Amino acid sequence: MKGTEIDKLINQISKLPGLGRKSAQRIALYLLKNREKSLVPFMQSIKEANKKIINCDICGNIDMTSPCSICQNPKRDQQMLCVIEDVSDLWTLERIGFYRGVYHVLGGTLSAINGVGINELNISNILRRIKKNNIKEVVLALSTTMEGQTTSHVIADKLEHFQIEVTRLAQGIPIGGEVHYLDGNTLSTAFQARKKII
Amino acid sequence: MKGTEIDKLINQISKLPGLGRKSAQRIALYLLKNREKSLVPFMQSIKEANKKIINCDICGNIDMTSPCSICQNPKRDQQMLCVIEDVSDLWTLERIGFYRGVYHVLGGTLSAINGVGINELNISNILRRIKKNNIKEVVLALSTTMEGQTTSHVIADKLEHFQIEVTRLAQGIPIGGEVHYLDGNTLSTAFQARKKII
Repeated sequence: MKGTEIDKLINQISKLPGLGRKSAQRIALYLLKNREKSLVPFMQSIKEANKKIINCDICGNIDMTSPCSICQNPKRDQQMLCVIEDVSDLWTLERIGFYRGVYHVLGGTLSAINGVGINELNISNILRRIKKNNIKEVVLALSTTMEGQTTSHVIADKLEHFQIEVTRLAQGIPIGGEVHYLDGNTLSTAFQARKKII
Repeated sequence: MKGTEIDKLINQISKLPGLGRKSAQRIALYLLKNREKSLVPFMQSIKEANKKIINCDICGNIDMTSPCSICQNPKRDQQMLCVIEDVSDLWTLERIGFYRGVYHVLGGTLSAINGVGINELNISNILRRIKKNNIKEVVLALSTTMEGQTTSHVIADKLEHFQIEVTRLAQGIPIGGEVHYLDGNTLSTAFQARKKII
């Protein structure tokens, strides 16, 4: 079946993140077996998404409008800015629902290995937004990976001379976490940052 | 993001076999981030596959022609018929490449739970092919699950009064398998079907 449309479809599917050739075969067969119920609506959905979904010029979120529904929302605190790596982080925060400020999506983290420098990320726009929108606090909600923390430091450096609060997420034992399963880094961080309770 | 095109796309993706909501989100974001490199070719590929891939009227395989390239191939032994559950089994057998006969794709196995009866499977066509093509041997290459074996028995029953050979795959310890990891069923089957070597 080399070179057939089936092969091409399987190749396309197997390029998607998290899918290998076996899962791609399974998905391709499923699509071709359920054309009316699955393949056609799926095809339609990709087409519509490609046509209608755009990037928000302000925060980098993806939505059907720009500015996106969050940037447009008058109930959101436009003076609080949460800097995140990716749209998926925004979705996670929105799902939990406690955060009422606005976002700034970097589109990744600084990474020498992957050739991502400051210019590849949406960093300079943060400074522009701070000046323009009278931002009071910037929360750097980046991953505690090497890349995330480097990015966090670089951004923090650039924000130093503004008269605003710059914060990062608290680090420590996750809620529901068991001490004896914790890795050494987390445990020693949590220990050093211990809080007085009485 | 309820009801948006993004949500619809994620819903469509998460319906695919083996994918949950998290993987669907990841794939949707990947597609929307790599429109030219990934989304557009993928969309094209599904469209082409939907247009060009058809079922073989003879064996139930999927291909760009009917009869499919295997049924059309004069080098294949048209008198040997391998009955399989699904097109993916055909791909596995073709990848290994030792089998030179033709196939018959059932499209599943009998399953009371899933409401799959004899009429849902491509069974009656086997009888038609045997009569028409002077088939000499039918290999029932079905899974050794409950459903696969039931299906195997039902087909074998129907083939009883034909003057042909009906075989099934050998059962036993897989090649490379370690005896102490074998499940009880396989081990006792392999033991009872032991072969004299000297």
